[in-house]
Amino acid sequence: MDLQSSALLTDLYELTMLQGYFDRGMEEIAVFEFFVRKLPPTRGFLIAAGLEQVLNYLENLHFTSDELEWLASSGRFSKDFVDYLGRLRFTGDVHAMPEGTIFFSDEPILRITAPLPQAQLVESRLINLLHFQILIASKAARMVLVAPGKLLVDFGLRRAHGAEAGLLAARASYLAGFSGSATVLAAPLFGVPIYGTMAHSFVQAHEDEIAAFENFAHAQPDNVVLLIDTYDTEAAARKVVALAPRLKKEGITIKSVRLDSGDLADHARKVRRILDEGGLKEVRIFASGSLDEYVLRDLIATNAPIDGFGIGSRLDTSSDVPYLDCAYKLQEYAGRARRKRSEGKATWPGRKQVYRYYGPDGRMAYDVVTLEEDTQENGKALVQPFMKAGRRLAPPEPLSDLRKRVAEELARLPEHLQKLQEEPPYPVKISKTLLDLAQAVDARYR
Amino acid sequence: MDLQSSALLTDLYELTMLQGYFDRGMEEIAVFEFFVRKLPPTRGFLIAAGLEQVLNYLENLHFTSDELEWLASSGRFSKDFVDYLGRLRFTGDVHAMPEGTIFFSDEPILRITAPLPQAQLVESRLINLLHFQILIASKAARMVLVAPGKLLVDFGLRRAHGAEAGLLAARASYLAGFSGSATVLAAPLFGVPIYGTMAHSFVQAHEDEIAAFENFAHAQPDNVVLLIDTYDTEAAARKVVALAPRLKKEGITIKSVRLDSGDLADHARKVRRILDEGGLKEVRIFASGSLDEYVLRDLIATNAPIDGFGIGSRLDTSSDVPYLDCAYKLQEYAGRARRKRSEGKATWPGRKQVYRYYGPDGRMAYDVVTLEEDTQENGKALVQPFMKAGRRLAPPEPLSDLRKRVAEELARLPEHLQKLQEEPPYPVKISKTLLDLAQAVDARYR
Repeated sequence: MDLQSSALLTDLYELTMLQGYFDRGMEEIAVFEFFVRKLPPTRGFLIAAGLEQVLNYLENLHFTSDELEWLASSGRFSKDFVDYLGRLRFTGDVHAMPEGTIFFSDEPILRITAPLPQAQLVESRLINLLHFQILIASKAARMVLVAPGKLLVDFGLRRAHGAEAGLLAARASYLAGFSGSATVLAAPLFGVPIYGTMAHSFVQAHEDEIAAFENFAHAQPDNVVLLIDTYDTEAAARKVVALAPRLKKEGITIKSVRLDSGDLADHARKVRRILDEGGLKEVRIFASGSLDEYVLRDLIATNAPIDGFGIGSRLDTSSDVPYLDCAYKLQEYAGRARRKRSEGKATWPGRKQVYRYYGPDGRMAYDVVTLEEDTQENGKALVQPFMKAGRRLAPPEPLSDLRKRVAEELARLPEHLQKLQEEPPYPVKISKTLLDLAQAVDARYR
Repeated sequence: MDLQSSALLTDLYELTMLQGYFDRGMEEIAVFEFFVRKLPPTRGFLIAAGLEQVLNYLENLHFTSDELEWLASSGRFSKDFVDYLGRLRFTGDVHAMPEGTIFFSDEPILRITAPLPQAQLVESRLINLLHFQILIASKAARMVLVAPGKLLVDFGLRRAHGAEAGLLAARASYLAGFSGSATVLAAPLFGVPIYGTMAHSFVQAHEDEIAAFENFAHAQPDNVVLLIDTYDTEAAARKVVALAPRLKKEGITIKSVRLDSGDLADHARKVRRILDEGGLKEVRIFASGSLDEYVLRDLIATNAPIDGFGIGSRLDTSSDVPYLDCAYKLQEYAGRARRKRSEGKATWPGRKQVYRYYGPDGRMAYDVVTLEEDTQENGKALVQPFMKAGRRLAPPEPLSDLRKRVAEELARLPEHLQKLQEEPPYPVKISKTLLDLAQAVDARYR
């Protein structure tokens, strides 16, 4: 059973509910929407991401014979139902905001329209895929906003939550504007550019630091990035100055040095001076170690001479906000709108569309959430069709296009959100049509 | 390329360093150790987990022909080196604390002894696997400690960071004492017991709530757990009371009801009264929604009549501590001890052992970290051999044994740590032998 694509990668309740739907022949069309209920205090906006992985999952959804056998042997389900699961494929429609679109609370960013059992079964994995990439793309975009013109590289695989998290974090952060990732597999898998230098162990394994630098320069002559904080940062910078002319004679240029500990701004200034005085003005300074958008902003505010940053744990775990209050909810079944009223968790019923309005300066001004049929003049409709009857309507958008979209979207954000000032919140209006429908639904279901 | 087992699931710098080691024939034995530098303020102890997945990764480590081809075509490496990678297997030794062992900062919980390139290459994935399961097992153990006798179920797949995180969270929380998980695939994969009820969508898809309950009871007669907060919690509890006798005649017993919103303690009390007055004293109350060890402790302190809890996002993301300050560091190469001195990140050199001492009450009293050869009397040596020359020394320990170990370990924790009071910190002493070696190493490498 493949971990990523297994149809058993779901919550048990999806299957127990499906047995219930099967027993009663409840196979009419259901509409589910995915949305974030409430933005966290430190997120003034979010970025849609993960649609590509969801479409891929839906296209390939099926139970393998091993999985069916396991289900049958579990004793939890009827034989007829297990046979039915063997035939189940996703035959529904998908509407969504394109990856890279900026969105806010209460806005549906993905809608599934499919026979109820199909739309229900996919809930767990669909949330799992969308939630994580939204989380990372949104966190990464904050770093991109505070560090214009800097090289930003994802260093987070080791502390990401498992293999898939590491890989999807490389994709989502690149999508949001990072330059690339240290994670090798992200290159063949997604075409993410990869970056790599050396670890302290490389330096330690050599009898002295300068031998380690020299060996590395010979092994990677086109990519000489030297880690200089293993023993004494400034002493190592002077060794780099001493080594550079020797390498130059062999035609090898030192590209940059990396700092990974201590007061990064202070070390960067001292190292910059040592390099400049040693004639190495072209050598760049790269820094890593416990970085996030706040540390980046501070470093940049003090003009620390750092040209690029490797960002790990706090990016790949979105450490200040490691999960979002998101949901995938039934909004319509068998042609009738539905709504959950649970305290603090009520949802808006029906098939919805989000319209975005821009101000005279070209910046985003406000959004309107309304019903799909309630077409709004002059607004930009954000939710678009991506899959019809289980088939994609177009090939996957290249990551380079998604990156362009994010850059354009970030440029049109209200100015205070670009500066990571979350107040006042971006206005999201609920249309009268939608308010009226919610009331009507409440009157029907008690 | 398989996402979990690919040898390319690593950081680029591992490969660029390997090219350097290869060029100089640096293949002598290296010793790396994995440890946590500093416990987070809200973690008085941690639980070792993830060793099984690490051993599995090491046993199967190899580059496939696709991966070799990709490496060759990347233009970053020499042809000889790529050929060498094609022959590379893990042939080293692994020493570790058995999964389920409680540990503290500065204590090596895993040691790799292998030719330098092998020990280096595995760094990224090894940290990725150990870090996450330690994170989750340690978070889960806190919930187990505050909720003795309660049914605890992992509900976190949807907000876990990807597929592997969801699956390994199910394993790690079960190892730590949870009753099971909602994640279906965790059953065939790890033998984790699975639990499932229904979602709000199931209720909403029916024209009325009682029809939904009845349908579910017929579909899952041995597992009737009814979600009662879709519209009005207490009204739904009264519907359960009305339905119970009808189901009883068909031989179906309602097992429990689930609350998922609002003030859980208040609803639980009201629902308990309704159920009791309706003759349903045997029906259990199960609660979910934004739970963690603090909320559990409060609910239990006020005697809320809740019998079990489904815990999702805050467990699967370890939301208050989404990553640990852990490292995998070179401690010896070619027979000589090594040490990194980077500011705030210095490490203890050499091959180490941890000895644990217990008080007269049988509880853990203190640990001593020392060199492997510095055998301590009366202490319990925590680091044990698990792999020799690339082969496991024993078959995997069953999860049931690991659960027993955790239960025994938690019972022997100092009392304040059992109550999640993190102060005073558990004493971890560094032996004089180790202090002396660190000084000697510092004198050698400058």
